[in-house]
Amino acid sequence: MTRALAIADVRLTPILVADPPLLNTQGVHQPYTPRLIVEVETADGITGVGETYGDAKYLDLARPLAARLVGRQVFDLNGLFTTADEVAVDAARVSGRVDVGGLRGVQTADKLRLSVVSGFEVACLDALGKALGLPVHALLGGKVRDAVEYSAYLFYRWAGHPAGVACERDDWGAALDPAGVVAQARAFTDRYGFTSFKLKGGVFPPEEEIAAELGDVLEYLEDPALGTPAMAEVAAKTGVPLATNMCVTTFAEIQEAFTEGAVQVVLSDHHYWGGLRNTQQLAAVCRTFGVGVSMHSNTHLGISLAAMTHVAATVPNLHHACDSHYLWQSEDVLTERLTFDGGKVTVSDAPGLGVELDRRRLEFLHRRWLDDDGTLRDRDDAAAMRVADPEWVTPSVPRW
Amino acid sequence: MTRALAIADVRLTPILVADPPLLNTQGVHQPYTPRLIVEVETADGITGVGETYGDAKYLDLARPLAARLVGRQVFDLNGLFTTADEVAVDAARVSGRVDVGGLRGVQTADKLRLSVVSGFEVACLDALGKALGLPVHALLGGKVRDAVEYSAYLFYRWAGHPAGVACERDDWGAALDPAGVVAQARAFTDRYGFTSFKLKGGVFPPEEEIAAELGDVLEYLEDPALGTPAMAEVAAKTGVPLATNMCVTTFAEIQEAFTEGAVQVVLSDHHYWGGLRNTQQLAAVCRTFGVGVSMHSNTHLGISLAAMTHVAATVPNLHHACDSHYLWQSEDVLTERLTFDGGKVTVSDAPGLGVELDRRRLEFLHRRWLDDDGTLRDRDDAAAMRVADPEWVTPSVPRW
Repeated sequence: MTRALAIADVRLTPILVADPPLLNTQGVHQPYTPRLIVEVETADGITGVGETYGDAKYLDLARPLAARLVGRQVFDLNGLFTTADEVAVDAARVSGRVDVGGLRGVQTADKLRLSVVSGFEVACLDALGKALGLPVHALLGGKVRDAVEYSAYLFYRWAGHPAGVACERDDWGAALDPAGVVAQARAFTDRYGFTSFKLKGGVFPPEEEIAAELGDVLEYLEDPALGTPAMAEVAAKTGVPLATNMCVTTFAEIQEAFTEGAVQVVLSDHHYWGGLRNTQQLAAVCRTFGVGVSMHSNTHLGISLAAMTHVAATVPNLHHACDSHYLWQSEDVLTERLTFDGGKVTVSDAPGLGVELDRRRLEFLHRRWLDDDGTLRDRDDAAAMRVADPEWVTPSVPRW
Repeated sequence: MTRALAIADVRLTPILVADPPLLNTQGVHQPYTPRLIVEVETADGITGVGETYGDAKYLDLARPLAARLVGRQVFDLNGLFTTADEVAVDAARVSGRVDVGGLRGVQTADKLRLSVVSGFEVACLDALGKALGLPVHALLGGKVRDAVEYSAYLFYRWAGHPAGVACERDDWGAALDPAGVVAQARAFTDRYGFTSFKLKGGVFPPEEEIAAELGDVLEYLEDPALGTPAMAEVAAKTGVPLATNMCVTTFAEIQEAFTEGAVQVVLSDHHYWGGLRNTQQLAAVCRTFGVGVSMHSNTHLGISLAAMTHVAATVPNLHHACDSHYLWQSEDVLTERLTFDGGKVTVSDAPGLGVELDRRRLEFLHRRWLDDDGTLRDRDDAAAMRVADPEWVTPSVPRW
């Protein structure tokens, strides 16, 4: 069996996918955003897929890691971390490219490396599941629920990207005030049955955005302040449960934050926590310390939504609906898009993740990446905003 | 695949196995000790084995749990905990049988339930591994080392059980003073190559036992005081790293102990932490809080040694040699005993745990359990000591 499960090939395909003009504290989403599709093929010719961030610094780490994995066992997921550590040490240049802040929290070398690992880990689990005839959730100890609830991820947004910018169109329309946000929420419910909602704030002044909030039905506030001491102060003074995908984004940040009561819910992004098994371990740490856990997302495609759904199905202490950007993505690399019913995604029992790569589509989106002159290969929401507003400067601290 | 992996049968076989007269703060080991052998058989006729504590209160929970597992998937390890919770709630009588103190730490209903689950979890992993052609370590993400180091577990002991008591003999001889302990350590090294040693103290007055200690090469002191506050005080005053398998024995005890700096190394007994996957999660919690982790053992056979070796092989942050009582056990239920070389056990790459049940031997040891009049079916080290010393009263607190 182990001979058949050796990794024979790893293919990396960077792509650019359409992204609508969603607003955030940094600026606005660019018309196309980079993602990296990872394919791991076993000696028996079974292929597993994963996806992760596709910016250049991720590719720089993914390429040497891919080369090192050939010949290793597809089930050797603990070894994957050791190998990634070795690659990261070799790639000393990486440490010089870390930037502080941004929408993904402090961008450390640690998180960068784990984000890359996550794409490989998911691809390995998909391949392993297909080879064994088992769904990914079974490889993670089995699902404890048959469907995973997601929240409708509401955004302030423009109807379209600035005039003259190459982009894909969608029919969501603008949402630039409370009425627009409410209309967007209604559309999410009508189309997909969502009953939980999450609003990406920090775009307009607090006194305007607060009118769109529902104080008495609020489950949590996400990252209303920067850093553990400030979060601890807000938590102590307001009593509103605080969630984070910025203050606690790595295992190294947990001890201080949990000891000081700075967060009540950790929103795990399986990409930067290092994959599905690390997400389960994070959930165990949270359970041990009486802290809630749910899942966060950044712009992602169906492979990652399937991965999130499999792991979320195995976490007993998942008491909040997960986030997903998926419905904002009009393009995907799958032969069949994942669907939401009653705001939920059904957990697949098919082997692996239960998704199939559309190679023609992948090639098309890769061609877009190849054809790009480099301006879109690294996501930059501030640059996108400056296309519409040349004076735009990203606030040094969030508006609220 | 999933049809073939459904559980068709679960067999529970309580046995009595020979145990030498090892001394501890409670008294002395009885000549035979109860263990429970769990066999899980899949629809395809593949059988996995596990073992756990065999006292009556464990059997009382194991029996209804076994009945509920038939028809479930052998990979459904998360569901195993849910099912065990349901069984424990039904078995309300269990909560009335919890005793406080003893060699396994505070005996809570939680720990009792998880100890039972661990035997089933290991049996399921063994069956799953055999069905898929993968070693158990591969089901846990793959080994990060090829052999696992154990420490020689030194005990004060008599040469044999009291005259007139039915028992098996061994050739270790007595160890009742520092010279005896040193001779025992030498024998462990000569026979099995051990380089780490652990002495079970608390038998003689501290001023006598201290002469057998090696202060300057001490890695840690295990449970020198009872409870988190006392452990925290010792840790703060002595600076010697403290290990525990009593103060932190469940996830519920971690938060207080870690926050107060009461322990520096958690010794996980996979039986009462609820199995191999929970042991991995414990290791993740420890890593997150900068606390060391290693593995503890109580009297056990080769199935549990194999299970410990598989999980220990997958834990990156295992920086101390594990404990094992295995070499004190002259009897086993396997066709072939596990062996130590250079104080290490090689991690098996055979499917499942890599061990084979000796059915004739199992039947023989089960017959011994059936023939017992009930005096040995529940381990009682104080009762065993009273056979030699009718005045014996277990100290209410350990001697030191």
